[in-house]
Parts: sequence; C-alpha cells; structure tokens
Amino acid sequence: MEESIEKYIRDVKDFPKEGIMFKDITPLIGHPEGFKLAINQLLEQVDGLSIDKVVSMESRGFFFGSVLADRLNAGFVPVRKPGKLPFDTYKQEYALEYGTDTLEMHIDAIEKGEKVLIHDDVLATGGTAEAVVKMVEKAGGEIVLISFLINLAFLKGEEKIKNYNVKSLLTY
Amino acid sequence: MEESIEKYIRDVKDFPKEGIMFKDITPLIGHPEGFKLAINQLLEQVDGLSIDKVVSMESRGFFFGSVLADRLNAGFVPVRKPGKLPFDTYKQEYALEYGTDTLEMHIDAIEKGEKVLIHDDVLATGGTAEAVVKMVEKAGGEIVLISFLINLAFLKGEEKIKNYNVKSLLTY
Repeated sequence: MEESIEKYIRDVKDFPKEGIMFKDITPLIGHPEGFKLAINQLLEQVDGLSIDKVVSMESRGFFFGSVLADRLNAGFVPVRKPGKLPFDTYKQEYALEYGTDTLEMHIDAIEKGEKVLIHDDVLATGGTAEAVVKMVEKAGGEIVLISFLINLAFLKGEEKIKNYNVKSLLTY
Repeated sequence: MEESIEKYIRDVKDFPKEGIMFKDITPLIGHPEGFKLAINQLLEQVDGLSIDKVVSMESRGFFFGSVLADRLNAGFVPVRKPGKLPFDTYKQEYALEYGTDTLEMHIDAIEKGEKVLIHDDVLATGGTAEAVVKMVEKAGGEIVLISFLINLAFLKGEEKIKNYNVKSLLTY
C-alpha cells in the first residue's frame, strides 16, 4: 500500500471555532519528506495530463499550487480575496455559512483553450471551488482536473463540482 | 548579461492607492518561462548554501517560497496574518504607515540551529521582514539568506535587516 500523508497532518481541536477539528497541514509542508510525498502524490493524480495553468486559491492553496506549476512546467494563477489583485479581474460570489464572499482572478490569467488544473488544500462545502470553476470557464479555460489534499466528504463539496474530474489524497 | 525578469513584471498605476505604481508579478508567475527564470535566479542567490527551512510571508511570498523549499529539499514555513495559524504561535508586531499589524509563525515550525532562508516577493519598508527575522531567531533558527524578487530601494527597507545576507533580483 502506498504511504499516506496522514501522519504529517495535525488535528487541532476547536479551530477556527468550537466544535471543529481542524486539519493542520503545516507539519506536512514543514517536513521535507512529507512535503515531497504530497507533491509526488498530487503529480500522480495529474497522470500525464498536459497542463498549461495551475490555478489555486488564497492562501493555503498556494503552498502546493505553485510547486505543481513548477513541476508541470505550467504557469501559476492565484485566485485571491477581493481587492488584492491589481489588474482587471473576474469576480465571483460564493455562499458562506452566513452571508457571501467574493473571489477574484485576473482577466488575462488564462487564455481560451488552455488546459487548467485547479488545486486547493481542502475541499469543504465546495463553494470556493465552484467559484473558481466559474471564473476559469468564463476565461475559456478547459478544466482537466480539480485536485485537493483533503476532501471533507461529510460536507458534500463534491456535489458542487460533480461534472469534473475531482481527486483528493485523503478523505474524511 | 543575464536575462532579466523585468519584462514579465507589470506596472499598475494607482494601486493599492493613488500615486503608487504597483509592481504586479502575476504575469511573471503566469508565464512558465518567466516563472522558471525567476526560480532559477532565486536559486542562484542561495549559491550552494544548505537550507533546512524556507520561511515566507502571506500571501505573495508563498508563490516562490514553497517552490524554493521543494527545489532545495527543505521544509516550508508559512508566516501568516493573525488568527490564521491553528497551533501555538510566536506573534510579532510591526509598524505600518498608520498603526501596527501582527504576523504569526508556529512555535514548532523551526528547530534550534536550523538554517533558514527567508523569502518574500517585495522588500518595501522592511517591517514584515524584520518581524519575520525576530520570530525565526526566537525559534533558534540561523538566517543564512533573506531573498526578494524586488527591492523598492527608495523605501530603505534594507536598513532594517542590514546585519543579514540580503539579495534581490530587481532593484527600483
């Protein structure tokens, strides 16, 4: 059986609020052997697919997103919180538990027909992933894979992106 | 003469506020050839130094920080804004133009005697770099290099970290 990244992930109780068991990936990226293990397993998910751009969400998505772009000889596209990107942007609202939030992506970050890997650390409710999918498709990108380190499956985020190729290293 | 990353950097006028010419590095990371050029030049700065941990600041510092950690077979340590890191943290205040802000780093992110590369995208007033230096040294890390893509030299940030080995790819 393949080695799991699980031993490098720390459970932190009651973060960010009471009753939540947070999956802390900083020990994973802090240990070179854990970091490499996760990178290699994420690359295995890509499985020879040709990727032009890796798109990741601020800011934990950047931990692995930029490394994947480097390893895949792709460009890296950061999706950021409102007001952080300096040039013209697509803006996409998504639902939070209470209220809404917005993500932005530069309008010239992806060219029509480019093959896109979307990567984030955790798939929770799927709201941010769905927002990123919408912006990538508005730009004309072709989403070939949506990859996560961790899928919190009990939150059913996969339902929001069920028409796509979605892979995760760990499922809870 | 070595190729410069400058052609991949976009000037955005009046961002984040009027009178400021913002250096936008998203075209640099979005073009695989620009991204690789910057990565290779940042690695040249390291020049064979042994690095145990790469420490970077949220969130543009993560674009290259995690790639450098991967390329150098080091661990990656994110320094984040208040309340974002789930475990126990060092906290370090630093001065803004008006008021102060705080950065945090996990207390177990760096072990005593580890060799540390601090990387961020831009050296401006040096406030965040100085805050990170203090936390790394509190943890017992040995700072072997502080690297930036861009040094906005007219803001004199280098004065705040003048006792360290500081390198930048571009100086304005």
